[in-house]
Amino acid sequence: MRATVMYGAGDVRVENVPDAHLIEPTDAVVRVSRASICGSDLWPYAALERSETGRRMGHEAIGVIEDVGAEVRTMKAGDLVVMPFAFSDGTCDFCHEGLQTSCIHGGFFGTGDVGGAQAEAVRVPQADGTLFVLPVGEDDALMPSLLTLSDVMGTGHHAAVVAEVGPGKTVAVVGDGAVGLCGVIAAQRLGAEQIIILGRHPDRIALAREFGATDVVSERGEEAVERVRELTDGFGVHSVLECVGLEQSTLTAIAIARPGGAVGRVGVPQDETMPASLPAFYNNVTVGGGPAPVRAYIEELLPDVLEGRIKPGRVFDRVGPLDEVPDGYRAMNDREALKVMVEL
Amino acid sequence: MRATVMYGAGDVRVENVPDAHLIEPTDAVVRVSRASICGSDLWPYAALERSETGRRMGHEAIGVIEDVGAEVRTMKAGDLVVMPFAFSDGTCDFCHEGLQTSCIHGGFFGTGDVGGAQAEAVRVPQADGTLFVLPVGEDDALMPSLLTLSDVMGTGHHAAVVAEVGPGKTVAVVGDGAVGLCGVIAAQRLGAEQIIILGRHPDRIALAREFGATDVVSERGEEAVERVRELTDGFGVHSVLECVGLEQSTLTAIAIARPGGAVGRVGVPQDETMPASLPAFYNNVTVGGGPAPVRAYIEELLPDVLEGRIKPGRVFDRVGPLDEVPDGYRAMNDREALKVMVEL
Repeated sequence: MRATVMYGAGDVRVENVPDAHLIEPTDAVVRVSRASICGSDLWPYAALERSETGRRMGHEAIGVIEDVGAEVRTMKAGDLVVMPFAFSDGTCDFCHEGLQTSCIHGGFFGTGDVGGAQAEAVRVPQADGTLFVLPVGEDDALMPSLLTLSDVMGTGHHAAVVAEVGPGKTVAVVGDGAVGLCGVIAAQRLGAEQIIILGRHPDRIALAREFGATDVVSERGEEAVERVRELTDGFGVHSVLECVGLEQSTLTAIAIARPGGAVGRVGVPQDETMPASLPAFYNNVTVGGGPAPVRAYIEELLPDVLEGRIKPGRVFDRVGPLDEVPDGYRAMNDREALKVMVEL
Repeated sequence: MRATVMYGAGDVRVENVPDAHLIEPTDAVVRVSRASICGSDLWPYAALERSETGRRMGHEAIGVIEDVGAEVRTMKAGDLVVMPFAFSDGTCDFCHEGLQTSCIHGGFFGTGDVGGAQAEAVRVPQADGTLFVLPVGEDDALMPSLLTLSDVMGTGHHAAVVAEVGPGKTVAVVGDGAVGLCGVIAAQRLGAEQIIILGRHPDRIALAREFGATDVVSERGEEAVERVRELTDGFGVHSVLECVGLEQSTLTAIAIARPGGAVGRVGVPQDETMPASLPAFYNNVTVGGGPAPVRAYIEELLPDVLEGRIKPGRVFDRVGPLDEVPDGYRAMNDREALKVMVEL
C-alpha cells in the first residue's frame, strides 16, 4: 500500500510499504477515506533528524473498517469510523476519567509498529476503545467537519474546557492556525461573551470572525498584551487558549489572563521550561492542558457537527490526493495553506 | 512604638518608629496582640539588599482595633480581629470573586507606607474589606490557631483547593514547613483518602502524621518521585500541594502528579521560569495557585478552629516577646524553630 514517510526535516515521501494488517486481536484495519496534515506535523517537518527508516506520518483520519481482530466487539467491517489521534483501550482508569491520551495501553499513531494515517490504510490498536462509528455514509457532505473530530476540533475544545470557558466569560485565543480557529468555535459554543483572536493572517482572521471571534489583536508581544487589556477593562481575559506552543506565545497567554484566570495549552510546547512562572503565580493564573482526549469529546461535539451548528471543516482550505501530501506539507509550512485534507 | 525592621539579609532589628496612625478614612489602627514570622519572611532574610531605610516586616497578626477612620462601617475600637496578610477593599470584582489578593485597591503589609505586623501596632488599609472580627476574647486559648487564619492555614487551604483535593483523592504535600503542615490539615479536612507528606524533619513529620498524613516520603528528587509512585499504584497523586517554591520542589511536584492531576502552588516561586513544562503538558497536569486569598477562607475555616476540629496553631513551636523577633528569624532560618509566634 501507499503511505507517507518523513525521512528528515523537509523530506516527506509517499511510498510503497507493507499492507496494514491485524497484529493484536484488539486491532482493526481501517481503509482511510480522508486524512489530514496537522500543525504538529510541521514540528518534525522543521526539525526531524534524518534517518534511514523514516517516520510514518499522519494521525487524523476517517475511514472504513476493513477487518477486525477476534476480540473487537463493538464494530465490524464496513463501519465508517473517526480515528482519534491517540489510541486507547477505553477501559482503564484514565479512559474512564475521560483522559484517553493517558491510557495505560494507549499510544500515538506513527510510533513503534503503529503506522500513520496519511496512507491508504492504517492498523488501529485497541479498536473498541479508540474508534468511533459514525452514523453517516462515506460520501457525506459533512466529511471535512467530521474529520476534525479526530484532532483539531477536539483539541480546540480541550483548550476551551481547560481554560474554563463558559457563559459570560471573556476569552482570548492565541494562534490563528486550525486549532486556534477550532478554539474560537469551541469558545463560542460554550457561551463565551467576548472572544479575542490573536493572529495576523487576514484570511484566517476572517474565518475566526465567522466562527464567532468578536475582536482581533494582530500585535505581538508586549503590544498584544496592552491591546488585550484595553479590550478587557484593563484586567485581561478569564480564559486563554494557547494554540501555538512557543515560548513567546505562552508568555503572552499568561500575561493576558485576568487574575484568577486559566490558560489551556494545546500547542505542543517546544521548550523544557515554561516562561512567566512569577506572573502566573502572583495573579493566581492556572495553566493546564496537554494532548486532548479527543475520543472523550466526540460524543459531545458530534451532534453539533451533524446538525450544522458548528462547521470546523471550514479550516480545510486545500484538498488533494495522497500523492500530493508532500506538497501539502510544504504549503502548510509556507503558510500558503491553512490545513490540508487528503482524499483517498 | 516598637516595630521590626529588616535592613538587609540577616539583619533584623526591633526599633522605635513613629506610631501607627490613621491616614485614609477607610483605615483602622490595630494594636497587635499576636503576630508571627512567616516562611516567606525567610526569603528576604536570606537575600534582601541592604538599605538605609530598611523594610518593615510582618504580615500575620491578631489584634484589637484602637481606632477607625470615618468611613469604616463594620467594625469599631475594641473589636478583636484577624488581619489577613494582604489588604483588600472587599467590594471590587476580584474581592467578590474571592480573590482578595488581586484586589484593585489592595496590597501587602510592609510595602510603601503600610507598615508591618511584627510591631506594637499596624495601620490596616481598607479595614472593612480586610479585617475579620473574631467572636472571642483576646485571652482565648485558641489564639494560636486563630492566628494561622491570617496566613498559613488559609494558604495551605488554598493549595488544597487549587489542587482540587476532595473526597477519595490521593494527595501529596511537598514541604514540611508550617504551610505544608497546614496543607495536610486542609487535605484531611477536604476528605482526601491518602495524604503523602514529602519532608525530612522528624518533628515536623510527626506533626504531619497527627494532622492526617498517611505516608511519609523523606527521599528527594528522582527517588522521591519513585517512592510516591510506588505508594500510588505507579501513577502519582491526584493533587499536589507545592509549599516550598524552589525549582527542585516544583519539578518534584509536577512529576508526582497523576495524569490529569493538579498542582496547587503556594510556595513563593524563586525562579522566573517553571520547570517540567513538558511533563506537565504530556500528562495534562494543571498548575495553579499563588498568593492565597485567605480573607475569603476565614469564614469557612473559622468554625472548625472554634470547635477544635482543626488545630493549626500547633505549628507554633516557639513563643516570645517582640524583642525576640530577630532571634526568631535566626531560629527559623536555622530550622531550629518551625514557626515563631510573637506575644505582645
